[in-house]
Amino acid sequence: MPPSHSDSPIRVRKAVRADGPAILKLVQSLAEYEKLPPPDANAHSRLINDLFSGSPRIQAYIGEYDGTVAGYALVFETYSSFLALPTLYLEDIFVLPEFRSRKLGYALFKAMVAEAYRRGCGRMEWSVLDWNRLAIEFYQRMGARHMKEWQLHRLGRSEMERILAGSE
Amino acid sequence: MPPSHSDSPIRVRKAVRADGPAILKLVQSLAEYEKLPPPDANAHSRLINDLFSGSPRIQAYIGEYDGTVAGYALVFETYSSFLALPTLYLEDIFVLPEFRSRKLGYALFKAMVAEAYRRGCGRMEWSVLDWNRLAIEFYQRMGARHMKEWQLHRLGRSEMERILAGSE
Repeated sequence: MPPSHSDSPIRVRKAVRADGPAILKLVQSLAEYEKLPPPDANAHSRLINDLFSGSPRIQAYIGEYDGTVAGYALVFETYSSFLALPTLYLEDIFVLPEFRSRKLGYALFKAMVAEAYRRGCGRMEWSVLDWNRLAIEFYQRMGARHMKEWQLHRLGRSEMERILAGSE
Repeated sequence: MPPSHSDSPIRVRKAVRADGPAILKLVQSLAEYEKLPPPDANAHSRLINDLFSGSPRIQAYIGEYDGTVAGYALVFETYSSFLALPTLYLEDIFVLPEFRSRKLGYALFKAMVAEAYRRGCGRMEWSVLDWNRLAIEFYQRMGARHMKEWQLHRLGRSEMERILAGSE
């Protein structure tokens, strides 16, 4: 983590297991904000396990404002076969609405950039919903490139089952 | 891997270290096909290491036609914080042009779906270039959903350096 100035109310730090309940609330708030289905009770316990087990699949970072947990970021490493380098993928980045406009989102984002850089990642990548103008404008100010020629595709488990049952 | 019929010329199998040179050639061919910069010599050795080290970052699968290596797929696991389940991400899937129209691409794709399902992934995801109509039509036939509301963003290392040097 980059050093915080002692006179700043903003602090970004790696999450610890005691942050679990706060992280679950933040994920819930992000799902509401994005109008997407939030994790159910089973997902809650899986998420905590995947964050804090011996070899965690994902890593969470906490953004505090004046000592209050006010935002979070969740990352994992993907990979570019052409660069042959890991990519830091920003799965979630979120600041509670009541803590906006205080540069906490910027501090969280910059800390993730520092983390990507420190890990030797060739890229940092993330996806943003097309109606989220505020976020998109922020990412453009940061110099991010919108990879608009790449179309994300997805199969869920029911489509997997249909494919596995069939033959083309 | 799903069982192959003994009378089929198609076989999909997990790559082994001896496939390294063939995989590098296939990655090179894919980069040419996608009109993207291919890995350089340093990237070659990193890619082989990241595929076949003790705890590999990525996994490769080989598609053979009549015993000849004719295609490959490269995957790693990402994560959905809302599902709290891993996603199998298909970084590369490619069949050499001279082996097209023999259902080898379909066999590779189906084998990756089987792999995602077996690992308990909630989703399989991948990105496709918007001009690659043949691939996009195939994915639509497979029942994949184009997540067009999600915009992929990317920072490279030089943009990371600019952000880390500045203050908003």
